[in-house]
Formats: sequence, C-alpha cells, structure tokens
Amino acid sequence: MTLDIDHLLTELTLEEKASLTSGSGFWYTAPVERLGIPRIMVSDGPHGLRAQPGEGDHVGLGGSLPATCFPTASAIASAWNPELLHRVGRALAQEARACNLSVILGPGVNMKRSPLCGRNFEYFSEDPFLAGELAVGIVDGIQSRGVGTSVKHYAANNQETDRLRVDAQIDERTLREIYLPAFERVVTASQPWTIMCSYNKVNGRSASENPWLLQTVLRDEFGFEGLVVSDWGAVYHRVPALLAGLDLEMPPALGRSPEEVVAAVQAGEVPTEVLDARVRTVLELVAKGMPVLDVDESFDADAHHALAREAAAESIVLLKNDGLLPLAAGTSVAVVGEFARTPRYQGAGSSQVNPTRVDTLLDELRAGHGDVTFAAGYGIGETADDDALRAEAEQVAAAADTVVMVIGLPGADESEGFDRTHLDLPANQRAALAAVAAVNPDVVVVLVNGSTVVLGDVVPHARALVEAWLGGQAAAGGIADVLTGAVNPSGRLAETIPHRLEDNSSYLNFPGDSQVVRYGEGLFIGYRGYDKTRTDVAFPFGFGLSYTSFALSDLTVATAGSVEAGDLSATVTVTVTNTGDRDGAEVVQVYVQDEESTVSRPLRELKGFTKVVLAAGASETVSVALDQRSFSFWSSRLGRWAVEAGTFVIGVGPSSRDLPLSETVTIDAPRLASPLTRDSTLEEWMGDPVGRRLVEGEIAGGQAAVVLDEELLTVIGNMPMSTLASFGGMSLDHDALDRITEQWQQEVPTTSHQIRSTKA
Amino acid sequence: MTLDIDHLLTELTLEEKASLTSGSGFWYTAPVERLGIPRIMVSDGPHGLRAQPGEGDHVGLGGSLPATCFPTASAIASAWNPELLHRVGRALAQEARACNLSVILGPGVNMKRSPLCGRNFEYFSEDPFLAGELAVGIVDGIQSRGVGTSVKHYAANNQETDRLRVDAQIDERTLREIYLPAFERVVTASQPWTIMCSYNKVNGRSASENPWLLQTVLRDEFGFEGLVVSDWGAVYHRVPALLAGLDLEMPPALGRSPEEVVAAVQAGEVPTEVLDARVRTVLELVAKGMPVLDVDESFDADAHHALAREAAAESIVLLKNDGLLPLAAGTSVAVVGEFARTPRYQGAGSSQVNPTRVDTLLDELRAGHGDVTFAAGYGIGETADDDALRAEAEQVAAAADTVVMVIGLPGADESEGFDRTHLDLPANQRAALAAVAAVNPDVVVVLVNGSTVVLGDVVPHARALVEAWLGGQAAAGGIADVLTGAVNPSGRLAETIPHRLEDNSSYLNFPGDSQVVRYGEGLFIGYRGYDKTRTDVAFPFGFGLSYTSFALSDLTVATAGSVEAGDLSATVTVTVTNTGDRDGAEVVQVYVQDEESTVSRPLRELKGFTKVVLAAGASETVSVALDQRSFSFWSSRLGRWAVEAGTFVIGVGPSSRDLPLSETVTIDAPRLASPLTRDSTLEEWMGDPVGRRLVEGEIAGGQAAVVLDEELLTVIGNMPMSTLASFGGMSLDHDALDRITEQWQQEVPTTSHQIRSTKA
Repeated sequence: MTLDIDHLLTELTLEEKASLTSGSGFWYTAPVERLGIPRIMVSDGPHGLRAQPGEGDHVGLGGSLPATCFPTASAIASAWNPELLHRVGRALAQEARACNLSVILGPGVNMKRSPLCGRNFEYFSEDPFLAGELAVGIVDGIQSRGVGTSVKHYAANNQETDRLRVDAQIDERTLREIYLPAFERVVTASQPWTIMCSYNKVNGRSASENPWLLQTVLRDEFGFEGLVVSDWGAVYHRVPALLAGLDLEMPPALGRSPEEVVAAVQAGEVPTEVLDARVRTVLELVAKGMPVLDVDESFDADAHHALAREAAAESIVLLKNDGLLPLAAGTSVAVVGEFARTPRYQGAGSSQVNPTRVDTLLDELRAGHGDVTFAAGYGIGETADDDALRAEAEQVAAAADTVVMVIGLPGADESEGFDRTHLDLPANQRAALAAVAAVNPDVVVVLVNGSTVVLGDVVPHARALVEAWLGGQAAAGGIADVLTGAVNPSGRLAETIPHRLEDNSSYLNFPGDSQVVRYGEGLFIGYRGYDKTRTDVAFPFGFGLSYTSFALSDLTVATAGSVEAGDLSATVTVTVTNTGDRDGAEVVQVYVQDEESTVSRPLRELKGFTKVVLAAGASETVSVALDQRSFSFWSSRLGRWAVEAGTFVIGVGPSSRDLPLSETVTIDAPRLASPLTRDSTLEEWMGDPVGRRLVEGEIAGGQAAVVLDEELLTVIGNMPMSTLASFGGMSLDHDALDRITEQWQQEVPTTSHQIRSTKA
Repeated sequence: MTLDIDHLLTELTLEEKASLTSGSGFWYTAPVERLGIPRIMVSDGPHGLRAQPGEGDHVGLGGSLPATCFPTASAIASAWNPELLHRVGRALAQEARACNLSVILGPGVNMKRSPLCGRNFEYFSEDPFLAGELAVGIVDGIQSRGVGTSVKHYAANNQETDRLRVDAQIDERTLREIYLPAFERVVTASQPWTIMCSYNKVNGRSASENPWLLQTVLRDEFGFEGLVVSDWGAVYHRVPALLAGLDLEMPPALGRSPEEVVAAVQAGEVPTEVLDARVRTVLELVAKGMPVLDVDESFDADAHHALAREAAAESIVLLKNDGLLPLAAGTSVAVVGEFARTPRYQGAGSSQVNPTRVDTLLDELRAGHGDVTFAAGYGIGETADDDALRAEAEQVAAAADTVVMVIGLPGADESEGFDRTHLDLPANQRAALAAVAAVNPDVVVVLVNGSTVVLGDVVPHARALVEAWLGGQAAAGGIADVLTGAVNPSGRLAETIPHRLEDNSSYLNFPGDSQVVRYGEGLFIGYRGYDKTRTDVAFPFGFGLSYTSFALSDLTVATAGSVEAGDLSATVTVTVTNTGDRDGAEVVQVYVQDEESTVSRPLRELKGFTKVVLAAGASETVSVALDQRSFSFWSSRLGRWAVEAGTFVIGVGPSSRDLPLSETVTIDAPRLASPLTRDSTLEEWMGDPVGRRLVEGEIAGGQAAVVLDEELLTVIGNMPMSTLASFGGMSLDHDALDRITEQWQQEVPTTSHQIRSTKA
C-alpha cells in the first residue's frame, strides 16, 4: 500500500493539513483515518531504541520497551569506523522494525565545542569531518533496512545551559567550517529521512524559525529532500516556523498548533502552497515509514548483545600501557571500583535505553581471566563510608599481582539538561586510586565517562590507562576483551583530552549568560584550538595505542583536476605495516595544512582517514581521497568556499600530533584578492606588480610632495588610496586615482590554474 | 577678544558654515576672515609636540619644530601617577603656547587588547580604570594652561592592521566595561576640548558615522560637551558623518567636503539645525583656542628636559634584582648594546617628536657612575657583523665587574601603521646577551621597547632586569638615575608580560581578516584573561620592584550608601610602611572581585590605586575611594550598569597577583533576576521560593502525570514553562500557568537594600 500524495492533497481539508504538520501525541505523526493516512511512530535513541509503549507519558521521559543499548556516540566515535556504525545501524533498524517504529531520532552530530557540554556523550566528535563520516555510517545502516533517521540537533546546539532560549552567536565562516559540515555531509551522502532542528537560536533566530538554516542552507544548498522535525518543544511560534521551513512540529502544542495554522492560512499569512509543501513532505515521510507498520518481525537479542560487545571493545582507547596489558595469564587480579559491579554504560535523558541485559566487568573478567577478587573502593554519588571502602580496597589490591581499577563519572554528573562545570573525576575515586596505587603500583585504570575528564592525578597512578567511555550494555565484556587481549584495542580519541579545562578555547565563552553564548573562539574548537595556541595536551585528538605496532611508509600524493573547474582532488597513498607480533588495526589519519593564507586558518585539519586491519607482520597500501573541499575555507568576503593558491602540507600519521609522513602540494588557483579599487590601500596597490607600476608612474609624472620611502609606507600603507587622494599627497588626486584604477582593470592578467605536486 | 557665536551663526553663509566643519589644510580649522573668525592650529603629539611648520606636507608626517620628547604613554603609564602626567601636561601646554598652537592631539586611551598592536606605545594600559585615571591627569594638566586636548581614538581602535576598514565586532557589555570606560572617565572628569573618532568600524559602522558612539553614548550618556574631530582621513562619507555627530573633518577632503555639505543642506538631507549645531561646536572650540594665538611665550627647554628625565625615571619598572642594583660605587661597569649610544626612546608615526636634545645611556652612566667601558654587542636592524660585535662585547664584559646591557626593539619593529606578528626581541640581541652572560654573569639588562616583549631567554641571563620602555629624549638619564640609585624605581607594569604570545586571550582573533576583527575574548583582555584561565605569566599586571621594601597592614573597608539609591560607595583604608632603608614609593592597588554572579565576570578588576612616597622607615595610612561602578557590571539584559547582591572581595596589594590583604563586603541590592513569566524555565520557577510553592500547589491539586523528581528536573529543568504546558505534563496547562504567573506577580516581596561589611 502506498499513498497517492497528489490526490490526497486535493482531498485533505485545511484542518487535516494543519493537523498533519503537528503530529499527534508524543511519538506519532497525525493520522487521517478517513483518507487512509496512518500515523507512524518515531522514537528516541541514537544508540538504542527508547520506544515508549502506548502514548508515552507527556514529557516523554518515562519507561520504554527493552532494547539493546549500544555504545554511546562518544564511545563508538572512537572506533573511527563508519562500517561498524553501519552494522550497529542495521541492528537498530531491526529493533525498530520489531516495534513497527518508522524513524529513529538520531544520530546527533553536534560538535563538542566544550568538554563541559552535558550531552557530549550523544555526540561524536570535536571534528566535523569525523562526525560527518560516522553519521553517514549509521544513517546508511539504519535506512538500508527501511527505517528512517533524524539527524540532530540542527544547528549549533552545543550546550545544555539554557538550551531552549540561548542565542548562539556564531560568524558564518565558523558555522560553515565547523558546525554545519557534518550535517552537510550526511545530507549529501545519505539523505536522512528527517533532520531535527534544535531548541536554540542561531544568530538571533530560533532554529525552528530560521529560514536561512532550514531553507537556504539545508534545502537550497545542501539539497536536503527529507522532512524537518522540531526537537520536542522547539517550536516557539507556530506560524513563523511553518513559513521558515519546519515541516513537522513535535509534539503538537496541546490544543493550539493546528488551530493557529488554520487561522494563519485563512488570514492569508501562510500561502496555501507553503502549507501544501509541508504536508507533502509529511506525507512523503509517512509513505516511507508505512511499510514498517505492517511487518511482524523480531530481533535476536543475543546477536545484538554480541554486536554491542564487539562495538564496545572497538570503542576503547588505550591511552597508556607500561607493559601491564594485556593481562598475563595466571596473574592474580584485584578488581577495584563500584563501577565494576554497578556499571555506568549510558547517559541520562532522552537517549536512555531500557537495556535487554547489562554485563558487569566483575563477571566478565571472572569469565575472561579467571577468578578475581573485588573491592568497591568508593561509593557512587552517595555518602558512603569512603575510609572503610578505601581500606578494604588497599587490602585486596595489596594481595593481587595486578589491580584493575574502574573509575569514572557518576550518572548524576553528565546528562541531557545541564552542563558540567568542571572536568574532574570525583575526589573520593581519585583518593581511592592513590591509596590503591600506593600499595600496589601495578594498576590498570579503566575510565567510564561520557565526555572528557582531566587525568592529571590519574595518569601517574596508572601503569596502564584504558578509556572505555559509556560503552553500552555490553561494555563490560568489551573492556574484558581488551584487558585480556582477546581484542587488540584500536580506538582513537575523537576528542582531545586537555590538561586543564581552562586550556579549552571555548572556556572564556562557555556557556555564556543572559541567554547569549558567543562562539568567540571561532573555528578554533577542539584540537584546532590547542594546536593554534601551541598548548600541550594530555592526549591529542586521534591518539590511541595498540598491543602491536605499526609503521607508515611510501607516502605519495597525486593531485588531479583544478580549482577553477571545481574538481580538484588528491589521492593520498601510504603503506601500513603491522610491525609487531599481534594482529591489530591502525587508523591512518590525513591532515591538511594551508601553509600561508590571507585568512586565519587552523594549523591543520582532519580531511581523511581509514582504518586498516592487519595481521602481525602484514602490510597494506591504502588510499585516502581528498577533494577540493579538503583544501578550502569559507570565504566570508566571497560568500563561498575558496581555495587559495599556494603550498599545502599533507600530514599522515596515527594522531593529530604524530604525523611522521608529510608531503607538500602546490596548488594554483584563481586570484582571490579583491580587484584593486579606489578604496584599496596603498599597501595593496604597492603589493601588486601592475598596481605598483601605475602608482609610481603617477608619482613620477606629477609633482610628488612625498617620497614613498619604506618608513612612510609603514605608517600610511594601510590607508585607502581614496583617503590619500583626499589628503592631496603624492600627486595622486582623485582624477589620477580614477585613471590608474581603470588602467589596472585593463591590464590585470588572467592567472593560470594548474596544480603541481612536489615532495616535501 | 571672543566670538559672539549666536551672532556669527546668523551671519555665516551656508558655504562658510560648511567650510568650518571641515578644517583648512592639514593642521588648521577653517578661518572666516570677513567675520573675524581665525583659524586655530592643532598638532600631533601626546608625549611631545609634533608641530609642523607652515602648512604641513600633505600627509602630515614630515619634519616638525623642536619639542621636548617626554616618555611615551606606555612608559609613563608605568609610573601609575596621574599627578606626574599633570605636570607633563602643563609642560606640553607651555610648548604649545610657545607655537601658538591650540589643541594637542592626545592622549590615546585605547586598550592594549593585544601586545602586538603596533601603536601600543601610544596607549596607557590593558586596564580601562588605570588608563582613565592617567588620561585625566594629562588632560587636566594640558587644559589647565588654556590648551586643548583630543582624547583618541574613539573607539575600539586596538590594532593597526587594516585600521581604516576593519570592523571591530564587540558585544555591548565588552564595549561598556573595557573599551569605553577610559573615555567615559576623562569626559566626566575633565571635559577634554575634543575627542578624536577612530578610523575603524564598530559593529558595522565607521566610528565617524556611528551615531550610537558619537551621540548616544558620548554626548547623551557621558555628557561630552566638546568637539568630535575625525582622525586624519577617517571620514568616509561626509554627510552621514555630519549627521552622526562628527563636528570637524580633518583634514578636509580636497575640494569635496564643503561642497558635499552644502549640497546636502540644500537638498534637505541635512537639517540646518544639525549643521548649525556642528558649526557652533567648532566655533566654541575656536573661541577656547583663540587666546593662545595671541600669546608670545617660550618654554624652558632645560627645565622640560629635566622633567622628562624625572618622568622617565619614574616610568621604569624594575622586574628583577638579584642584588646587583643599584650599582655599587666603585664597581667597574661595561655598557653593552648599540642602544646605549644610539638610543631608542620614542615610536614612529604621527607621534614622532623632533626632540630638543637626546641623551645617551653611555654618556649618562659616565656622568652618573664614573668611567665605563662600552661595546656595541649587536647591530640594529641592519646587517652588521654580529660575530665581531659579540666577540668585542665578550671582551669588554669579561673585564668589568658588572655589565649593563641594553637590548630592545628596533624602531622598525613597532610603529603606527602595522602590528607586530611576534613578541620576540631580535635574535642577534638575544645571542649577544647569552654570550655576554656566559663570560660575566653579573648582567643588568635594560629593556627599551614600546610594547611588551617576551623574556623567556632574557630573564635567566639577567641578574637584574629593568624595563625602561620608550622613555623619551631624557630616557637615558632616567635609566642612569635608577641604575645608580639616584632614583629608587617605583614603576609598576600597566600591561602584563606573558610567557608566550599564545597565552594572550586575543590570540585566536587578532588582528582578524577579511576586514573583520571579532573581539571573541570579550571582557577578558590583559590580566582579566590570564587570571580567568589561571595562566602563569612572566610578570603580572601591577608588578614592580623597589630598592626598599614595603608592608601593608590594617585594611578596613567602610561602605556607605545603597545600590538602590545609586550611591553605594566604599572607602578602603590601609597603612603602608617603608620597611627598608631607602626612601621610595609604593603603589597600593585595590582590586574588586564579585564572588558569585549570574553573569561571567573577570576574576578581579582594578578599581582604585594610590602612589605613596615614603621615607625609609616611615608609615602612612592612605584611603582609596570606590564607588558603585566599582562593583557593577553592564547588564546586557537590562541595558544598564547593575550590582548584584552578594559578597565582594576587596583585595589590596602591590600587584594584581600579590594581594596580601583582603576584606569581604556583603552588598544588598534589588533583585536582578527577571520576573517569573510563562517563558521562565521550570528551573527558574523551582529556584524561586514563591514560584516553587505555586508550581507544586498546581501539581498537587491536579492529576500530576509526572513526579517532579530531581532526575527529571535535570533533564527538563531548562524548558520554559510554556513549553511544558504545551506538552501537557505535570497538570500544568496554559490556564494554570497563567494563574500562577499572576499569583507570583502579586506575591513577590520587595527586597531590602542595606549594605553590610564583614571581615574576610
């Protein structure tokens, strides 16, 4: 059964059309039974379904049906593996099909502007390229099984503080280069069924009422063909939202929304064509979602749990290993930490899943390594008798060969709805770690946290350090697999771990106040900030260890196409060799650096990566494709992407701060400098060969009152020629200026646009 | 002779009026001879006159009449002594009178947003309070002698890069708290005859065409009664500038300006009253400046040179002294450094003075200490034979007891017209220092530079370190006085010396590009930035050593008045004791810290200071007055200055990072929180005692679908009540919300507004 949308649009009453643009209840689109338009269901849950039974509970945060809780976004991003996300996506879709649920409300691709953002565990990365690639993986995976996605939160929803009212003030270049590219990438590559607009304002207008975001950028430029749904409650003014490009308000404002729409159409404020366009988009979504309503399927909970475990293991980032891992067979192990028996594996809020089961690290290590001892060591978030717990932990730790100590953030510390105010682990956990390490220095620290924590007093106590994030219901198994060596860790940081919160570039402006947040750091979030200010970090973006070792060699960069034609590309080829004695996986990362630019640019930016699985001793040559965008910046002057002629360094390596191979590419491109005009500065004229000749000619020909020596140039060089003409200096009056401006326009040569590649 | 302005306005033709608003030639107002309106002359030179003979040279940067070159602003600011500036101002005025010159174009009170700004040597400080107090000193000094000033560059002219076109994008609070207060202070305290508008745009509008800056803020709010003159060439559109509040265009755009004004009045674009108001202001200035035209005075060049020497000595900041200073009598001294015989003592550009004479450190040390040896050590800005110079310097240094080594920035490194790109001293000078220190570790380093340099590889080689800035024509004598101990140094840094350029908060956004500079760091410039990010600095704001020692004791803070009445004040009283064996001067600095605030505030801010001269062993009790502004922030929400109730720490000490005494003051103030409304968040309702009772009452009375537990509150707490009412949760529908909103408005208590003071 399908919908004949053209016909339906002729049959629907105004009231029915209005109702279709506002949903019904918390989780459903509005049905129109007389015309056979069913309702379809949507549900929270980028890393697991949160499908509420029946009509939900009116704030939509109560219990939900059991579902597999996969690793959260911040965890699985660390796998740097879109294919893994594709598989998880397919599994999620299967669970949706089993509930006859048509759209999963995820993934979240917002940037981690600050590590304090309470919802960072739901987001992938501080880097837009990485976030975009991962989003493509999961969206393609889900949608390949006939279930829709909702890529969220569009746009610039990078904090929880006052998230429904705050105005994110961001210059366009920063939006274009940092906050929008992940959306752009997933739209152009995967056409998600829906995009969810965010609660916040962007440059003064609520996302739901922002035609620049919803129409100009999303549809006209990115080519989005799906439906824009509001975040739940993000519509503040129904009619402006409808006009701006919002297709579906969720949930409908009780007893108000359809009426307001009807009245606005009747009053002529909303053209019928606009309402029809929105209704058409809703009906297209219903049509795509309808097939799921009729399926009678189930899912294999055990298989999904196994996939969750595999994903959890691949999400783990080994930060330090002083030879303690993997655990040697036969060593006696003391497990310390309440989290080992009361696992923290997901975050709170709308993404919270009711898991089909939950493993504990204690059980999994007992299964994977053999009998282990245990002490809680600390209490979680309550007033526990920390002294007694610590004393017990010391005893247990002292008696074992090796200690595996799990510490992390209590659930109350990070959640949707609020931001953290610091990056510290709880004091009682850190004290317990220090106590344990004092009696047994052979400590493996396992971290469970949804977003970055600072590790200044953890690292010295950890002979091995494992960042396990919030790994979902099977996290414990994944951790055990890494600790025992059943899995060789291959995760890489998708977000920098700084030494101090204050080192983060957003620090002075996060989370703002008075309902305004200024993105004062501009482009320089995450590693772009730390790199630009040459700030030492604890663990850089892209970093992660393995139980084996890799070598990179034979880098080549082959360019093709041209900037002028818009088809510049480069193929980066490198050979990866597993030089150790264990099978493992390396993530080859490709960063691009523009060596000189007329605009401020990041030191380097991730523009490509690939994950390579290699048997011990094996070698493989891999390629990473770069395109013109890889070299571009958003020119606020030109209002478009632009590449500036010059040299670019292509750096290749295993992390953003470890790029052993690099090649310099020289790119020709059309002149980006503005044409010389009357208002160009003396410096600009003198910096242009033709311009200089013309200026000097006029001066020589006239009665030059002033000699253009270097010292004078430094003082008046930044004055527009028109200002100097008014001064009457240099014999360059307004007539002369008109003359040389015209002459320049005639003479300026057309630049050529070849691309050359040269070895660094 | 005076002008009958009312009468003149009736006599002047439109053309004559127009001509009066545009000046004549480079340095004069326009005369109207038939009506006896003379022209008056203005001249560059905040630290010395740059009076060009005759009509100038058409870009206004050629030779000028001999005048005393006093220390530049960045130098004399370090004296933290408005009274010294008053004396210098009187001397400057006398020199102006001697040339029949009516207005001196200074002082410059722009903030040192970045140490890179090429014109920082012309500005006082990174702190607006200090800059304001110092500006009052010099303006009062100059104007007390019947000569006018031009406080510049209004506003936000904090860089040279693209200064005529760049748009400084700054939020209003930052303008109000950082970039405007020095102007505000000097206007309200001293009514400078003129204010000079800057070249740049502020938030999209050129300063010369910016009615918010020129009329709303400057005249309506600050109460400015004088004349606004353009920076030379800062008028881009004559008529909009006239309308915006610019009184006098300088210099007149050749052959265009008066005509444009005439045409605009004739076309009705400019009301006659507006032109008349501008002309009246010009005539008022001419009237004030006329008496100077008739005087036949001279100045005592020797006395002014002596004052310049005294000012130079007081401007010096002793940064480090490992017992080497003052130079012990009888020690043999090697003077090393080309700057000791080729002094650098002022900056380049429009402020460059043709000095009456120039001393050299070599001569002054020979006079003050006895026979000394000399080696150049390095060349300045040219290709010198540095190896040979270094070898010679090593020889000379090795043979002496003590080395006095002068290093600094070549003139080509800092100037009006361009910004620096790094903070390093020249490599050849640093190499020479290292070489000298290797043969003789007893090195006194004397720095000559107009703006901050980094000192990472200087400090280790300097047993004593003297920051002498650009101290004017008598700088050498002032330095010699400090080195020999004839003067006990009392300067304090008016700008932080960071370890690295990248530590400065403006780093990511300075100087911008594409004709835009975003002030992304907001309020947090200078020490406000370093303090907020807890960044270690080389030498903090306010720091400076002495040859004696001081102790502070007996701090009291007495408050009076009330926030509600607008007359809150506090008197800070402290006893200063010279605990050493030399006479000297201490600068008592008072910083205010708001311990808790609903808006982001600097950690602490300078709000008062006083310089105390004390004989060895003497004691004095001094008072510093704080007013309501000392506790206020600019509320962008309320559009006014506001004080928030709570505790404030008054820290008192010898530098911004050394505040041994502090007292906590508790201030009551009217509630600043917005009234609770339908769009206030659940959190805001629950955080207010009355609000919470009303919300809970409604929920208890209704059929609450949701229990408001803490976990739920964290997730939906930041949702506006109106959003939640639309959801239909919590039995709080729109009617109930209307009910409790009205009830709250009736119940909210009036807060009391007493002020209490309690010891910390």
